[in-house]
Amino acid sequence: MLTIEQMVERIQPLDAEAMEGAQRRLDSLTKPPGSLGKLEDLAKQAAGITGEVTPDLSRKAVIVMAGDHGVCEEGVSAFPAEVTPQMVLNFLTGGAAVNVLARQAGADVICVDIGVNAELEHPGLEQRKIRRGTGNIARGPAMTRAEAEAAVRAGFDLVAEQAAQGVRVFATGEMGIGNTTPSAAMMVALTGLDPDLAVGAGTGIDEARRRHKVDVVRRAVDVNAPDASDTMDVLAKLGGLEIAGLVGVILGAAAHRCLVVVDGFISSAAALVAVRLAPLALGYMVGSHLSMEQGHARLMEATGLNPVLHMDMRLGEGTGAVLTFHLIEASQRILKEMATFESAGVSNK
Amino acid sequence: MLTIEQMVERIQPLDAEAMEGAQRRLDSLTKPPGSLGKLEDLAKQAAGITGEVTPDLSRKAVIVMAGDHGVCEEGVSAFPAEVTPQMVLNFLTGGAAVNVLARQAGADVICVDIGVNAELEHPGLEQRKIRRGTGNIARGPAMTRAEAEAAVRAGFDLVAEQAAQGVRVFATGEMGIGNTTPSAAMMVALTGLDPDLAVGAGTGIDEARRRHKVDVVRRAVDVNAPDASDTMDVLAKLGGLEIAGLVGVILGAAAHRCLVVVDGFISSAAALVAVRLAPLALGYMVGSHLSMEQGHARLMEATGLNPVLHMDMRLGEGTGAVLTFHLIEASQRILKEMATFESAGVSNK
Repeated sequence: MLTIEQMVERIQPLDAEAMEGAQRRLDSLTKPPGSLGKLEDLAKQAAGITGEVTPDLSRKAVIVMAGDHGVCEEGVSAFPAEVTPQMVLNFLTGGAAVNVLARQAGADVICVDIGVNAELEHPGLEQRKIRRGTGNIARGPAMTRAEAEAAVRAGFDLVAEQAAQGVRVFATGEMGIGNTTPSAAMMVALTGLDPDLAVGAGTGIDEARRRHKVDVVRRAVDVNAPDASDTMDVLAKLGGLEIAGLVGVILGAAAHRCLVVVDGFISSAAALVAVRLAPLALGYMVGSHLSMEQGHARLMEATGLNPVLHMDMRLGEGTGAVLTFHLIEASQRILKEMATFESAGVSNK
Repeated sequence: MLTIEQMVERIQPLDAEAMEGAQRRLDSLTKPPGSLGKLEDLAKQAAGITGEVTPDLSRKAVIVMAGDHGVCEEGVSAFPAEVTPQMVLNFLTGGAAVNVLARQAGADVICVDIGVNAELEHPGLEQRKIRRGTGNIARGPAMTRAEAEAAVRAGFDLVAEQAAQGVRVFATGEMGIGNTTPSAAMMVALTGLDPDLAVGAGTGIDEARRRHKVDVVRRAVDVNAPDASDTMDVLAKLGGLEIAGLVGVILGAAAHRCLVVVDGFISSAAALVAVRLAPLALGYMVGSHLSMEQGHARLMEATGLNPVLHMDMRLGEGTGAVLTFHLIEASQRILKEMATFESAGVSNK
């Protein structure tokens, strides 16, 4: 059973030699140097991550971590908490948006009960429950430090198992009614941003309710007084079980030299925690989309991520990350299939 | 043989009833209303274009129009003009970036010689040459008005043929060494923008050469003095054969109720011309990517297009438009495959 420190230690720098090999290959192809922009960056990053110029990235999975949030009793969400377990069943029967988009991208959907406040039974469900929902962060800690560590470990171990089966590309997904509130609270605690700029409309609350949510976030940070220099303290006091699970997914992907595509606001909160725990993990992350959720642009900037998609999405589940799989695939095909100046007989500048 | 006016007259408004049907379907799906952002917009737009809530959009093609530019003799490009015919052969043998990305997206590449300054022979090439390259716009008109109209008609007719064969989604692509210069000149003439803000680095010139290119654009507009209220006059005097061909592709797609995805800077110059000629054509266009070429953001804004991809690309050929095919496909799958609140037993807000 690894400690957080042991997980972090397993993360190594990217392979500079493989990245140089990818750069040489890219510069030989029939296009002005660098003209494919972030497609070229993705090809180089994949080389640095895997250590191979043309790796096999065919096996892809989106890991959808589900958990509930005690803070829902403060009335922070447009949807009732019972939607979390209902949506888990929707993931398991293939009807949710992330299932549809994952089928298109040829990716598996791995649905994990890491903290749903209900007893769930389904042959396809990954049972990794740490506890039934978090405590109400407006009144006290979300969970104990041991529980937060266990949730991170659950994500890390799951990725280790999947990587052993050949999965090389992961996407972070989540479901948890109320989870933009802990994400915003963590962001405030870790970056010092004004809660009014970190809190958005989530699944669709009006401005009066958003202002109430700002107050809830402010109270959560005041009541719990987390130590910003102790990232696990922030995660335990203000986070969520699915968010902690995704921290583990990101650390696990980095430790196993896999790509991990970071979805929207909640996933980015997990990414910020991961990069604070393990700065080297950033090299393994791929930014996906700029969410409509207020605060997401600042959260990505704080993490060091750049979005490629501007789709005005705000659903979560991993939907934006899974759409990004097509761009990763495109970057690989460019590297593998394009003609060179020499092979095509095209004059170079 | 249709006149420009007759082409424009064939473009009808979007089907409001089909769009409402798509909206109702989208609102019944297990997600907060509107939370899939531009994926939902794309699904509605496709319904409005085709008149069907769930149309068959499986047949897709990128039309790569190739032409040469007399203005190359002013030294405006990083690459020699001989690269245009060389790249046409690369398109025909499947080795260019757009071929690779089209294969991934399941789209045909249709390569058209509409104005290459060379005799080209290949069984796969669409021969629609109007003339061998344009005149040097720094000294006189690019082409006659009759030639510009013929090039527009060539694009229109090609789309009509493809639509008759079942293609419902088009992407605009182009190849023509030097073609950011006429695109910038047309943008300046049509919008009144300062040439220094419209002219970028193209395939990769340095700042000194870019300033020279700014002067060339300024001279082109002064020498030709096009009538900004007469769009075809601007196109004939400052444009390019492949740009005029793409105007026809866009008008043709709109007239035949097909989607047309607009690629980068040069394609967007064609889109601006098309929307000036036929404002209703905008409803049939899909914005793709924000290019690195300076001026592209303003050009898209002037046209009324919104990019979904921010990839820092600057290659043209239709590469960014073809990447957008995956997002159109995603929007269709969402509409067709997602569970409803009722079917999945999920509580609505």
